[in-house]
Amino acid sequence: MQIGMMGLGRMGGNMARRLMRAGHECVAYDVNPAAVEALVGEGAIGISSIEQFLEKLTPPRAVWIMLPAAITPGIVDKLAAFMQPGDMIIDGGNSNYRDAVDQSAKLAEKGISYIDVGTSGGVWGLERGFCLMIGGPDEAVKHLDPIFATLAPGADLDPSLRPAERGYLHCGPSGAGHFVKMVHNGIEYGMMQAYAEGFNVLKQANVGHAHREADAETTPLPDKQYYQFDMDIEAISEVWRHGSVIGSWLLDLTADALKVDPSLSNFGGRVSDSGEGRWTMKAAIDMGVPVPVLSAAVFSRFDSQGNAEYANKMLSLMRKSFGGHVEKPHGK
Amino acid sequence: MQIGMMGLGRMGGNMARRLMRAGHECVAYDVNPAAVEALVGEGAIGISSIEQFLEKLTPPRAVWIMLPAAITPGIVDKLAAFMQPGDMIIDGGNSNYRDAVDQSAKLAEKGISYIDVGTSGGVWGLERGFCLMIGGPDEAVKHLDPIFATLAPGADLDPSLRPAERGYLHCGPSGAGHFVKMVHNGIEYGMMQAYAEGFNVLKQANVGHAHREADAETTPLPDKQYYQFDMDIEAISEVWRHGSVIGSWLLDLTADALKVDPSLSNFGGRVSDSGEGRWTMKAAIDMGVPVPVLSAAVFSRFDSQGNAEYANKMLSLMRKSFGGHVEKPHGK
Amino acid sequence: MQIGMMGLGRMGGNMARRLMRAGHECVAYDVNPAAVEALVGEGAIGISSIEQFLEKLTPPRAVWIMLPAAITPGIVDKLAAFMQPGDMIIDGGNSNYRDAVDQSAKLAEKGISYIDVGTSGGVWGLERGFCLMIGGPDEAVKHLDPIFATLAPGADLDPSLRPAERGYLHCGPSGAGHFVKMVHNGIEYGMMQAYAEGFNVLKQANVGHAHREADAETTPLPDKQYYQFDMDIEAISEVWRHGSVIGSWLLDLTADALKVDPSLSNFGGRVSDSGEGRWTMKAAIDMGVPVPVLSAAVFSRFDSQGNAEYANKMLSLMRKSFGGHVEKPHGK
Amino acid sequence: MQIGMMGLGRMGGNMARRLMRAGHECVAYDVNPAAVEALVGEGAIGISSIEQFLEKLTPPRAVWIMLPAAITPGIVDKLAAFMQPGDMIIDGGNSNYRDAVDQSAKLAEKGISYIDVGTSGGVWGLERGFCLMIGGPDEAVKHLDPIFATLAPGADLDPSLRPAERGYLHCGPSGAGHFVKMVHNGIEYGMMQAYAEGFNVLKQANVGHAHREADAETTPLPDKQYYQFDMDIEAISEVWRHGSVIGSWLLDLTADALKVDPSLSNFGGRVSDSGEGRWTMKAAIDMGVPVPVLSAAVFSRFDSQGNAEYANKMLSLMRKSFGGHVEKPHGK
Repeated sequence: MQIGMMGLGRMGGNMARRLMRAGHECVAYDVNPAAVEALVGEGAIGISSIEQFLEKLTPPRAVWIMLPAAITPGIVDKLAAFMQPGDMIIDGGNSNYRDAVDQSAKLAEKGISYIDVGTSGGVWGLERGFCLMIGGPDEAVKHLDPIFATLAPGADLDPSLRPAERGYLHCGPSGAGHFVKMVHNGIEYGMMQAYAEGFNVLKQANVGHAHREADAETTPLPDKQYYQFDMDIEAISEVWRHGSVIGSWLLDLTADALKVDPSLSNFGGRVSDSGEGRWTMKAAIDMGVPVPVLSAAVFSRFDSQGNAEYANKMLSLMRKSFGGHVEKPHGK
Repeated sequence: MQIGMMGLGRMGGNMARRLMRAGHECVAYDVNPAAVEALVGEGAIGISSIEQFLEKLTPPRAVWIMLPAAITPGIVDKLAAFMQPGDMIIDGGNSNYRDAVDQSAKLAEKGISYIDVGTSGGVWGLERGFCLMIGGPDEAVKHLDPIFATLAPGADLDPSLRPAERGYLHCGPSGAGHFVKMVHNGIEYGMMQAYAEGFNVLKQANVGHAHREADAETTPLPDKQYYQFDMDIEAISEVWRHGSVIGSWLLDLTADALKVDPSLSNFGGRVSDSGEGRWTMKAAIDMGVPVPVLSAAVFSRFDSQGNAEYANKMLSLMRKSFGGHVEKPHGK
Repeated sequence: MQIGMMGLGRMGGNMARRLMRAGHECVAYDVNPAAVEALVGEGAIGISSIEQFLEKLTPPRAVWIMLPAAITPGIVDKLAAFMQPGDMIIDGGNSNYRDAVDQSAKLAEKGISYIDVGTSGGVWGLERGFCLMIGGPDEAVKHLDPIFATLAPGADLDPSLRPAERGYLHCGPSGAGHFVKMVHNGIEYGMMQAYAEGFNVLKQANVGHAHREADAETTPLPDKQYYQFDMDIEAISEVWRHGSVIGSWLLDLTADALKVDPSLSNFGGRVSDSGEGRWTMKAAIDMGVPVPVLSAAVFSRFDSQGNAEYANKMLSLMRKSFGGHVEKPHGK
Repeated sequence: MQIGMMGLGRMGGNMARRLMRAGHECVAYDVNPAAVEALVGEGAIGISSIEQFLEKLTPPRAVWIMLPAAITPGIVDKLAAFMQPGDMIIDGGNSNYRDAVDQSAKLAEKGISYIDVGTSGGVWGLERGFCLMIGGPDEAVKHLDPIFATLAPGADLDPSLRPAERGYLHCGPSGAGHFVKMVHNGIEYGMMQAYAEGFNVLKQANVGHAHREADAETTPLPDKQYYQFDMDIEAISEVWRHGSVIGSWLLDLTADALKVDPSLSNFGGRVSDSGEGRWTMKAAIDMGVPVPVLSAAVFSRFDSQGNAEYANKMLSLMRKSFGGHVEKPHGK
């Protein structure tokens, strides 16, 4: 079937490609003309303004938006302005699910369906398929089923299998898709941090070799003899892939990346967070649900961004005030 | 080759089976004669006392112990008492790696090698193979290579692949194997908790339907319209298996278990912890390494065991003292 | 000077009393006529409808609202409907500071000033005074200075001292007062939890006396000899009040309450949370500021309310799936 | 009465002074002769070797040690070597309570009493008195009562008050004193972190003024209008001292220090930890008691020491692997 695709970056471009390879027709738009051209070379119908979606798509039109969360709402409004009853807007980006709840109510008044699709699979989706978590009205979601089935990883599986078993799921009304994706990313943050902490412990397993000074400000390392291991982090990440309880796709990727850069020389340790972890926490807080692990993962990233500095200075001020402790310089 | 196997429970029995199926000879012992008999029926040489390992095994003897951590050290001492220089004791249980550091030093004086093997794979290892994390002296580890290669998941893979790629790894001197397994389990705790918290958030996504009273003791739920989703947890666990970033073996098992018991009706919510999570935390503390996620996972289990009760009562006493707040009864 | 007081509960009643004792004139209203009558008996001018504030107060009128956060916005709207330019509404309750930002902008259009006053001191404020954190326009805050100075603890101190030294502070524009109070309560949660955890550790310091079974599901207690202390919690709470680094007003109250109920027999351990802790977390998340301690305190309360149950059941399901672990019944 | 004092640093020197001012006789020793001389100038009997305690003190001798935890056990052994049955060694430093359990058992064989005294009060103890948490055999603790009563803050109070009300407490057998002090410091860490996090939130309350870029790596700040406050941290720390629920001695000191250095210009944000927080966590882990707040406080310090760096690099590697995310440079 036919679909409009707007936002041809890392994710959107590959989704268009995967759809076209399966025979779907893509009308492609991006603010960057080169991105459009590249996709035209692979069979897409390119357009040079958002308004052209109106003429190039046959009603009921479906436009899939794949843009940063910050600019998506404005684009949706712009699109909706010239769309017609029966048309569909699909937001496949990392938007806040609350926007979908709000937008869908607003667009429903115009007869336009709003479908929110949480999309996981990263840069690997072109070959591997994208896991799709879908929210929206039944009819529109049903209409788009061929698109979802193609994008999902189980495109080649027996179509009698449940969609969930083929990698896509209609999770509920508008907002449900991005909600499930939000929680997915919250879990992702927790898992990543679990691995990262574990590898950090392994890395430091040789601290018993080092000299650690003993003064009133520094605890001596107890039992040095138990911290004498020089661990091969790359090899450990590899062995865990085979038959262990913590095997995962994330671990597969980590092990492969460590083969290329075993000393992590390409990284400085500033870890961005892109919204869903924060939103998961805020939803949990509203609900009264304890999420200590997801929160610790998010806070560790805030810390890596330098945002604990003021608190830490305050701690040093307190230590000096009650105990006369003099702060040690950074770098020990 | 030939190996003694002591402790024929969930793990030990299956390890013996996997070895025998590949043609290794097993001398099997357990305090429970029925467990020995069962294995004899599958080809093992059964013995009825620990001392018989001496005669039934050809030097250099290797006895693999698969017992609870609490009783392992005593058994090792007992075994070592009649073993001879060149013999090997392999501890495949969930022992503290510090025991291995201590034991190996002690046994080295007698010329006996102590090999600690962290073993992951759970009840699935018979078919799937066991992921092995090995610590111990080079020569002994090398001697046992055929055993490790058979137990590991990659038994049928090209033997020119690195052992890590076939699912076993010599991690370092005695203790290194259990250390890596300890950290493995710490990560496992973190991952499990990440999933569990995420599913809890999904489960509560319909709290906007419920009436929540507004009094000075209870925060009103803000924005009810955003918490109206009745999520199908089982279906979500399934869809995430296909192409998402959080796909893992743990998720595979969880999704399968939810198909059988989607309402978790078989569980009350008391979660045991069996040592490695605690040890990982203690090692991290000694090293000065922050492990907030691994710790939050362990503390959540402590909480589920009822161990926060006194602290919570103390909080209620404080709230009453400064604010006159009266505690609400459990069950709201 | 003259002030209207609406909401004569635990806090509002005592504030009116403290003002009247210092010679201020109070026009008092509550939905509960008995509360009004009681205050009339102590010198207040009682009214029986909110509209009567209009006639009983001399312009510029000032009405102080002391109500649950959930109903405050509606009451403010109702009051504002009949107030006149130059009048002032003071919200002294535990409202979300965002309401103050929004309300003040709305009321400014009508020429009405909105002043948000975070109020700490609990049921002790009548004698001890109330710590006041104030947000709002300069002129109105200045006008109300005699009220603030009387309510604050330093009413009898040298008036040449800075207001902060006498217990009240104009923190900034509308919203700033409730913002500072919100953070105050976030800190309060963290401090309370710190004490509660510490007392819990002390309470369990005798676990070495108890028998703890050793099976594959339970870690044996290492080093029993170090956990043989039967601590006198009440006496410890008392000694810490004298010269220790953790002395505080909260500790004073705790020690006094423990003298009355040393075994915490009046409490079941369900700990309410009343909003500010949650709001502090949400603000920190928006800002990207790590608040692991404040969050852990809030999550512990969620846990005490039973909201981790589903997550815990999920953990038990996972443990059974990969390891065949059978859940232990509650109560061990 | 007479007492030996060894270790005349920040704490030990002031303890000796406080004792002498009350008429007790101090025999003083330190490896630094200048420290001894200074105290001799204030009335102490100075000695130049540890062995001289034997002759200068009248049996039963009591020597109070005030040294870093790391070197204390060696010194105790040295002292004990020439002491006689009935003599007493008091360890007032921040030693691990386990050392006291072990040492007291060892010394009991020689008839020497070992008394562990947790001491809080920091550099302020000379004037304010020291809060003392005491472990050890009844008879020796009773014998030393005049010393304890003098050192404690309530030296001038009615002696019919319970010792706890005068600031010292016999908590139990050897080890109990340092155990209670250990937990005291754990609580202290939690309280400090609670304040520090709260102040950090206040400090960032103006982030709405700043421009925050919106790209796929950065969440836009939602609702800028709510983050426009320029808070006066010093003034807030002062106002909270007066009548608020979070008033404490720590807050008093913090407010005073902020008056001198309101911008924290003297601090870089590297926060040391000196052992007790770690030990509290390890004890809690052994007991199975959840201490999420105390742990978060300790981990924040580890983070400030740079020890999360490897974990953070690993997170960046993972993000690049699955999502093609490029790490942002530090400093944003």
